[in-house]
Amino acid sequence: MRTDGRNNNELRPIKFTRNYTKHSLGSVLVEFGETKVLVCANYEDTIPKWMDKESPEGWLSAEYSLLPQSTNTRCPRERTKISGRTQEIQRLIGRSLRSCLDLKAIKGKTFIVDADVLQADGGTRTASICGAFIAVSDMVEKLINKKIIDKNPIIEPIGAISAGIVNNQIMVDLCYEEDSSAQVDSNIVLTKSGKIIEFQTTAEGLPFEKQQLDEIYKLAENSINKIINMY
Amino acid sequence: MRTDGRNNNELRPIKFTRNYTKHSLGSVLVEFGETKVLVCANYEDTIPKWMDKESPEGWLSAEYSLLPQSTNTRCPRERTKISGRTQEIQRLIGRSLRSCLDLKAIKGKTFIVDADVLQADGGTRTASICGAFIAVSDMVEKLINKKIIDKNPIIEPIGAISAGIVNNQIMVDLCYEEDSSAQVDSNIVLTKSGKIIEFQTTAEGLPFEKQQLDEIYKLAENSINKIINMY
Amino acid sequence: MRTDGRNNNELRPIKFTRNYTKHSLGSVLVEFGETKVLVCANYEDTIPKWMDKESPEGWLSAEYSLLPQSTNTRCPRERTKISGRTQEIQRLIGRSLRSCLDLKAIKGKTFIVDADVLQADGGTRTASICGAFIAVSDMVEKLINKKIIDKNPIIEPIGAISAGIVNNQIMVDLCYEEDSSAQVDSNIVLTKSGKIIEFQTTAEGLPFEKQQLDEIYKLAENSINKIINMY
Amino acid sequence: MRTDGRNNNELRPIKFTRNYTKHSLGSVLVEFGETKVLVCANYEDTIPKWMDKESPEGWLSAEYSLLPQSTNTRCPRERTKISGRTQEIQRLIGRSLRSCLDLKAIKGKTFIVDADVLQADGGTRTASICGAFIAVSDMVEKLINKKIIDKNPIIEPIGAISAGIVNNQIMVDLCYEEDSSAQVDSNIVLTKSGKIIEFQTTAEGLPFEKQQLDEIYKLAENSINKIINMY
Amino acid sequence: MRTDGRNNNELRPIKFTRNYTKHSLGSVLVEFGETKVLVCANYEDTIPKWMDKESPEGWLSAEYSLLPQSTNTRCPRERTKISGRTQEIQRLIGRSLRSCLDLKAIKGKTFIVDADVLQADGGTRTASICGAFIAVSDMVEKLINKKIIDKNPIIEPIGAISAGIVNNQIMVDLCYEEDSSAQVDSNIVLTKSGKIIEFQTTAEGLPFEKQQLDEIYKLAENSINKIINMY
Amino acid sequence: MRTDGRNNNELRPIKFTRNYTKHSLGSVLVEFGETKVLVCANYEDTIPKWMDKESPEGWLSAEYSLLPQSTNTRCPRERTKISGRTQEIQRLIGRSLRSCLDLKAIKGKTFIVDADVLQADGGTRTASICGAFIAVSDMVEKLINKKIIDKNPIIEPIGAISAGIVNNQIMVDLCYEEDSSAQVDSNIVLTKSGKIIEFQTTAEGLPFEKQQLDEIYKLAENSINKIINMY
Repeated sequence: MRTDGRNNNELRPIKFTRNYTKHSLGSVLVEFGETKVLVCANYEDTIPKWMDKESPEGWLSAEYSLLPQSTNTRCPRERTKISGRTQEIQRLIGRSLRSCLDLKAIKGKTFIVDADVLQADGGTRTASICGAFIAVSDMVEKLINKKIIDKNPIIEPIGAISAGIVNNQIMVDLCYEEDSSAQVDSNIVLTKSGKIIEFQTTAEGLPFEKQQLDEIYKLAENSINKIINMY
Repeated sequence: MRTDGRNNNELRPIKFTRNYTKHSLGSVLVEFGETKVLVCANYEDTIPKWMDKESPEGWLSAEYSLLPQSTNTRCPRERTKISGRTQEIQRLIGRSLRSCLDLKAIKGKTFIVDADVLQADGGTRTASICGAFIAVSDMVEKLINKKIIDKNPIIEPIGAISAGIVNNQIMVDLCYEEDSSAQVDSNIVLTKSGKIIEFQTTAEGLPFEKQQLDEIYKLAENSINKIINMY
Repeated sequence: MRTDGRNNNELRPIKFTRNYTKHSLGSVLVEFGETKVLVCANYEDTIPKWMDKESPEGWLSAEYSLLPQSTNTRCPRERTKISGRTQEIQRLIGRSLRSCLDLKAIKGKTFIVDADVLQADGGTRTASICGAFIAVSDMVEKLINKKIIDKNPIIEPIGAISAGIVNNQIMVDLCYEEDSSAQVDSNIVLTKSGKIIEFQTTAEGLPFEKQQLDEIYKLAENSINKIINMY
Repeated sequence: MRTDGRNNNELRPIKFTRNYTKHSLGSVLVEFGETKVLVCANYEDTIPKWMDKESPEGWLSAEYSLLPQSTNTRCPRERTKISGRTQEIQRLIGRSLRSCLDLKAIKGKTFIVDADVLQADGGTRTASICGAFIAVSDMVEKLINKKIIDKNPIIEPIGAISAGIVNNQIMVDLCYEEDSSAQVDSNIVLTKSGKIIEFQTTAEGLPFEKQQLDEIYKLAENSINKIINMY
Repeated sequence: MRTDGRNNNELRPIKFTRNYTKHSLGSVLVEFGETKVLVCANYEDTIPKWMDKESPEGWLSAEYSLLPQSTNTRCPRERTKISGRTQEIQRLIGRSLRSCLDLKAIKGKTFIVDADVLQADGGTRTASICGAFIAVSDMVEKLINKKIIDKNPIIEPIGAISAGIVNNQIMVDLCYEEDSSAQVDSNIVLTKSGKIIEFQTTAEGLPFEKQQLDEIYKLAENSINKIINMY
Repeated sequence: MRTDGRNNNELRPIKFTRNYTKHSLGSVLVEFGETKVLVCANYEDTIPKWMDKESPEGWLSAEYSLLPQSTNTRCPRERTKISGRTQEIQRLIGRSLRSCLDLKAIKGKTFIVDADVLQADGGTRTASICGAFIAVSDMVEKLINKKIIDKNPIIEPIGAISAGIVNNQIMVDLCYEEDSSAQVDSNIVLTKSGKIIEFQTTAEGLPFEKQQLDEIYKLAENSINKIINMY
């Protein structure tokens, strides 16, 4: 049995509190057990400088940050440089969300997602992706209502979850304690229809078998299905 | 009458939600109307490098930050340099809190306060000081219970409030809309017994009279009294 | 009696050497006792990027710096980041000077003030404000003569002085030795007609009474009057 | 057929020129077709600051960089900050190499791998991992001969390759042209015995099926086998 | 006799491998004994921001870098700031190359030279200058062929060499071992016709006589003549 | 005749005001015509981190800076990075001063020279070197008197001057106007006995002849002789 009594295929209690702040067009407080992430979405009427000004597509970029006291031991603010971990997570969130958007439908615009972790207990990046999808959806609804965009750019809902191998057992939605002793650590992003957007699996200690990867996929697929149904 | 119907000497609804996060020894969600600041306190068993290692005193330092979507228009994260405004606020919070602590009672330790603004609607710096006092108090109680410190270092409770002149009227606890059109902008930090810790008054537009400064003081004194009674 | 034999209400010898350097439109070496600050004024035909290009107003910005060997113990050059103290002083100088200017009269222009401390012995920020007023005045005269601006933007002369409580005595124009043992530390910026531009009072150690703040104001008002008469 | 006439399961010509430079204990020029990466290995008798000084394990860290004219369009040197892409690749190389090392056998030491891309034509990160394994192996041999370490820390050889879906076809070892139009982009790191160290698959455009992921794995497994046999 | 058996006026074996990489218009691997520098040339259709947009002249800028394992002891990458040494060398390379170009003939363009040291054994800056001349020449030929420029901007070939006083002997083309014990260290850049572009001589230990400077010049002149004949 | 009426071999009026500031052990305001540089010397009881802690030698380091309004057009403060020009000048000043010191006589100490240009009109780097020699001499005298060092580390006085070719005429001590149109630009540092410490000559436009370099040397030698006699 797991440290918090869950079964290996069991998710923690999940809660989405939408419209959590007032200055964003979309905002949601995401809770996966003790992990709490505030995700906000807004947009700008410009596209990034590196894009061709005449590009037929818009863009979505994401930023991620841990509040300094969100973690077990206080983590210093990233005020002079951003860690590799933060950059990887930001890139993953951005890439995942762009995969479920028709960027042509937001031509000339940049969607901006901010994921700020208020309390960290494992799975902050996948919780951020779920929250980002919700915040962007809520923003899109408002943009359509206000006739700022014509067409819904969302292709299909997406969801994300962590999984891994801990004590030789494959399990889903790892809390911090499990995550820090995991032999294999995976992050999976899938669409509602079960297609793969991102599959990252890393052996923290010893290498693992292809068959285990297949089981991780199966477990993640079921879990993401449940999550998307809660949106 | 004011934009939100308050009298000039009336505070917005104030709420302190203590123990808001689990990794800090003290943490509180402070709300002054729509302004929401998460303030956390923790400590380290070291003192800053610039202090004499044998110093008979400890230290308290504070950091302050706006979440990017906490403001009306998204404010960029301070990831490569910190603005002058942020630095001023951090210094003010730290100085104010140190003024109500007997630093000798925390010899060899540094108290660390993090104030992160989730939603900004005026008065974030004074809300942060009130929250910092609460978070530090809660931490101190735990440190005494755990016998990590012997003696309560807190000399006297403190509180803080903004005040100013808007449309030629002196008023307290300005919301963002009032603050952005204020002719005079003040931040006052007082002790429970009515002594001054910090009095900052700035003419944003035209200079003002000494008598107005006196009225601002009077209004702030009454308001801070009310706030401290809510702790 | 004070360390240098002055009365509590007595200023140090003050000297303004105008036109100190040749590349600035206004420049002055300001001396308050052993404190020596070189203040220069110049202008650019642009306004800051964050301002609306069509703004009906111009701007004034200020920079402040200590030469490394201007202080008792050599202070390192701020070559990678600027300290909170420097930023606060720069913002104070800029804000104070803008308060005595009609910014509409310098539409499209930015006045730039540089205050560089050659030797520090307390009161460098208030000396910088006095010097900045002189340097800007001298520049304005030249700009009018050269018909670069039509109208004198200066509303009224301003002056600034430090004051504080040292050994329980209220005194004005603190030298470094006094400043470093002050219980209360104030910086006051007033107009020639006695109006308040900035009043900053901080308890360095113990909190203080409102009545003491009133006495500090009185003392500063008399002193600034004397200073402005020396311009 | 592919742009350079290869079959989908065919690797580009691969060449490893060992002992390429004289100041490193291990160094190799790796060529996968037109992609040329110089990988060097060295060590220090310290471990990173964030590790416990008494740690029973050593460490391996990796740095990766593109020479500015190694790419199609000149890429600026990363002299003030490192891009997210560079950080991700560095972390991937380091993690992969640590996975094939018994870090206890290099207690108190840090192995340092530098991968510098002289010419980029797709697959630089996987070429860097292959080169890093060779450079570290050559260094280890010298360290054992010089009796600087007692025991060979290498558990098993590893190899890496890119794969992906281009024009709806699954193919291996993508050149730049293929890579920039890929629908799915994968990087796979495996051991000689076929175990997984890292499996990263990303949908650049549309999501993909689990079955395609399985085919990518199969193709990568065969290819890495061939590569390891060339060491 | 010298550490590697050469006479004092003898150059190390020199080799220029042109067209070393495929993405640059000019590229050359320069070898002076064990010193190996990859020099690439490219151009942009813009001029630096600090130049007048209507300038009748173009520009050439140079960047220089040591690969981290190119040196005896690994030198850290310059990822947050550039050392004074690097900056001096970059400026020297740029200045020298501009001295042999008619910048009016490349109006509106910036030539960019990148010199990356793969292996350092003394004389990397002078090797870089020789390589830069070759890479720029090769690029110029292509630009003329493609009719991107009308007129050859090269005025006259240039070459560079180090010289110095080691063990009281004047010698040319110092290897690292000689360089690190040199009493006097010189870098000389001359044109094919023997004119001086740059003459830098520094006493590392004790000052030296004018007559020695004259001998250094003589030795450098002969050596540069030989080098230019190898282009 | 020259722009200011001088002969080609004539120095501008030179003035050294010693003990210019009170917090430095040595300080001097150096004036070469309109060029004014404040040079201060102090020391620390440590040596740089890169030196071996047991080194039998001490060190001297120098910093150089232009006040922003010291130049014709305001030059921005170097607050985030230092220009190549500044770094070159700092290195030149440090190297020159170390050449006239017996570093063994200041074992365990670092001398620190700060050269801050109050007004620039050509020749600031050579004026800084002359000033640095005076400031260090004055500091050394005090250190010997206070018995902080036993032995005078100064080997021999040094001096520095600029020279160049302007309008095909070789001249000494160039003012800004001359400097900015010079064809050849030289900086020469010599000892009192006429030995060379540093000889830097650069063709700004066209290359020049060895014979011209000899004349530049001759002119500089005479001028530096005169300067050292004024110390």
